[in-house]
Amino acid sequence: MLLEKNIKFDSKIEKNVEKIVGKDNLITDIEGVYGYAYDCAHIQFDAKNPCMVVLPESVQQVSEIMKIAYENSVPVIARGAGTNHAGGCMPLKGGIILHFAKMNKILELSSSNLSCRVQPGVVVSDLQKAAESAGLFFPPDPSNLAVSTIGGGIALSSGGPRAFKYGTMKDYVLDLEVVLSDGTIIHTGAQTPKNVTGYNLTQLFVGSEGTLGVITEAVLRLIPKPEHSNVLLAYFEQLDEAVNAVSAIINHQLVPSVVDLLDKKTLQTIEQFFPSGLLCDKEAVLLIEVDGDYDSVKNQQNKIISLCKDYNSVYIDCAADDAHKQRIWTSRRAAFGACAKLAPNVITEDVVVPRSKISEMALGIDQIAKKYNIITMIMGHIGDGNIHPNFALDLRDARQKENFEKAKTELFKLAVSLGGTLSGEHGIGCQKSKFLSLAVSRPAMGIMRGIKELFDPKNILNPDKMI
Amino acid sequence: MLLEKNIKFDSKIEKNVEKIVGKDNLITDIEGVYGYAYDCAHIQFDAKNPCMVVLPESVQQVSEIMKIAYENSVPVIARGAGTNHAGGCMPLKGGIILHFAKMNKILELSSSNLSCRVQPGVVVSDLQKAAESAGLFFPPDPSNLAVSTIGGGIALSSGGPRAFKYGTMKDYVLDLEVVLSDGTIIHTGAQTPKNVTGYNLTQLFVGSEGTLGVITEAVLRLIPKPEHSNVLLAYFEQLDEAVNAVSAIINHQLVPSVVDLLDKKTLQTIEQFFPSGLLCDKEAVLLIEVDGDYDSVKNQQNKIISLCKDYNSVYIDCAADDAHKQRIWTSRRAAFGACAKLAPNVITEDVVVPRSKISEMALGIDQIAKKYNIITMIMGHIGDGNIHPNFALDLRDARQKENFEKAKTELFKLAVSLGGTLSGEHGIGCQKSKFLSLAVSRPAMGIMRGIKELFDPKNILNPDKMI
Repeated sequence: MLLEKNIKFDSKIEKNVEKIVGKDNLITDIEGVYGYAYDCAHIQFDAKNPCMVVLPESVQQVSEIMKIAYENSVPVIARGAGTNHAGGCMPLKGGIILHFAKMNKILELSSSNLSCRVQPGVVVSDLQKAAESAGLFFPPDPSNLAVSTIGGGIALSSGGPRAFKYGTMKDYVLDLEVVLSDGTIIHTGAQTPKNVTGYNLTQLFVGSEGTLGVITEAVLRLIPKPEHSNVLLAYFEQLDEAVNAVSAIINHQLVPSVVDLLDKKTLQTIEQFFPSGLLCDKEAVLLIEVDGDYDSVKNQQNKIISLCKDYNSVYIDCAADDAHKQRIWTSRRAAFGACAKLAPNVITEDVVVPRSKISEMALGIDQIAKKYNIITMIMGHIGDGNIHPNFALDLRDARQKENFEKAKTELFKLAVSLGGTLSGEHGIGCQKSKFLSLAVSRPAMGIMRGIKELFDPKNILNPDKMI
Repeated sequence: MLLEKNIKFDSKIEKNVEKIVGKDNLITDIEGVYGYAYDCAHIQFDAKNPCMVVLPESVQQVSEIMKIAYENSVPVIARGAGTNHAGGCMPLKGGIILHFAKMNKILELSSSNLSCRVQPGVVVSDLQKAAESAGLFFPPDPSNLAVSTIGGGIALSSGGPRAFKYGTMKDYVLDLEVVLSDGTIIHTGAQTPKNVTGYNLTQLFVGSEGTLGVITEAVLRLIPKPEHSNVLLAYFEQLDEAVNAVSAIINHQLVPSVVDLLDKKTLQTIEQFFPSGLLCDKEAVLLIEVDGDYDSVKNQQNKIISLCKDYNSVYIDCAADDAHKQRIWTSRRAAFGACAKLAPNVITEDVVVPRSKISEMALGIDQIAKKYNIITMIMGHIGDGNIHPNFALDLRDARQKENFEKAKTELFKLAVSLGGTLSGEHGIGCQKSKFLSLAVSRPAMGIMRGIKELFDPKNILNPDKMI
């Protein structure tokens, strides 16, 4: 079924697009476009093949393609590596995929301005490495950073463990070059961290999941690289104790760069598939990273160790050298991969609550999972109140699928009832759009629809996503 | 002329508003409303009296008033202390002033959530004190923080010296309660630092200068209070050397909380009116504040002193105790007041450029000031590329007024040509709206107008401001 083309274009469109980008930058054969029917959230949705995949090489090409799409009312979905968990770049109505693999250059990187100018296809970790080699730091660290792209990160406003101290993608975007639905090219900001010149169009595009325009270039803020960092694991017999230890750390004026939590089931699953010496009989572990100059790292670390002990941490594994640090981070990063081995599907959910409600949320997740008989592992960026429950199940089983839908509904309702919301860093895509009204009131939704219509009157930009 | 009422209301409107807020919260006499014809940018514009000033006590009252205003197409201007420099809350078309002096409560302040919930009339320094007494920190520090309000700060996205390390108001707003033009009440976000649930309405309201809705409540992010801070002054014989020293500091991975610059004329003017021992024969001084734990402050300070010396600083005055620290900050804060004594008018301008262009911008300001024969003092948050030239002149003199208009035009053109923009933290208001097209392209302006129309179809929310 998937190997059909959905909407067959007027063949003139294909020819005109080919004239713009050349044969080598156009994929139209069924085997070629098939890979673009999905993204990282694939199995949950009825995918459709795009009609063509275009690899543009310049903003002018993107603009020309948008003009054709606008004239012919053809959907356009911009896409980087497709690593999002929300079905954000699935071509639900077919159409043109703009794949930014060839617009992947770091155009400028300035130490004196603490900024860089990049194309959307730059891989996040490539930018991080380039920044580091100039003594600079690009903090956003989505867990897929080795493959995910800046354009996708901006479109989803993605985060990562370091968000507690450093914020998410939205906090690093100064200016965007965007192609609007009719092909018009605009800039949204300036090359400066401070800017209050008109409405904040930049932040309207950040997190808009490609529904308002196509990002073709970004000026990003960089910061000086911290001199040093270190990481520790603090184990607890109760999840509550770990949460309380975090509150104590913050109440003592400490600002770790990372405050993550893994529950027992996650620890056990990591050890089952990627043994790395984690203690699997503890209810929870905190992974805490601190950074700064050497003395400050030492100071912070000592205070955190002492506070964790005060709050009943039963064992603390503090990295003694770089290899040890690497080992701890590798086991943390193995979490998702390990969970994925438990069942045919593992769905990483993403809810966020005020930090004081973490224990309540975790307990609720546990109850929901038990009620619907779904294996659940809880991990998350507890410093931000951002929890990722991983649900392991088999979605080919109709009953499990139905149960999962019910479980999700309860999960989102609980997050919202605790003062939180549906997504901290994964976005809405097509996965959560039907739940959006739980978190966004009817008049606010009306405004969002008005914004969508203003930017995209023909509804061709990533249609049926988010709102 | 000013003591006339401009548009006389249907008397029913006055009665209906009185029914909502009560007699005590309504000012309609000419002497009472006169004070609301102006704000801190007053003398440059033709002011008009508002028809009435209302002091609402709840969001419901604001909503009811907006319904009346909407039905009768009456302008509504929300206002805090009126300290903005852009004419942002001047009632150019008369109408209703909503003065939030009575909605000035801190409703919640949570250490465990690192957040607070406040009404718009809370004075910025009151919130800072409340946060500090809970071991927390609210970094935005506009220089008028002893009187300016949170609502105004959000509406203008105001900044301050600490923006270099900590960002501006926009970086601390998690959720807003807003009354739309027709009286509908919405929330824009959630009580969590991470949130990617629909378009970022929060950041659309931040910096929108009351043109899209009336902010009636805000959830703000707080951070743990740094343990310690210290400040130093580093004098240079050349402005360029000061700029280079800043680059060196940043290249050495240091992140001071404040990196301000004052030029010779500013130093001289401060000493003329508020003698505090500043060295007036030096071309430039850097004011650098660092914060962190005790050891880290010491470390950072020593490195900065050594780097400033490497870059030809001729004298460094590093605070030795709290009184000394206070003395340095008091002289810095006296800058604007001192400049104001030089001439009947002192206009604080606000441009921002990439930091590598600071010297070029400063030189350009100097040339423009000479060309138009205007006394100019340059100060600014150089770490952010944010320069405030203070122009001292007499705007009653037609020729000076005309020259100043020309000087401003050249100033803004220069900032934009250097990759910067018209305002870093003061906003557009009515002062800069005619210059907006220098920084915002025609299609981007079209989008901004579309947004304004979507939110405010009757153009009653702070009309004729910004766009």
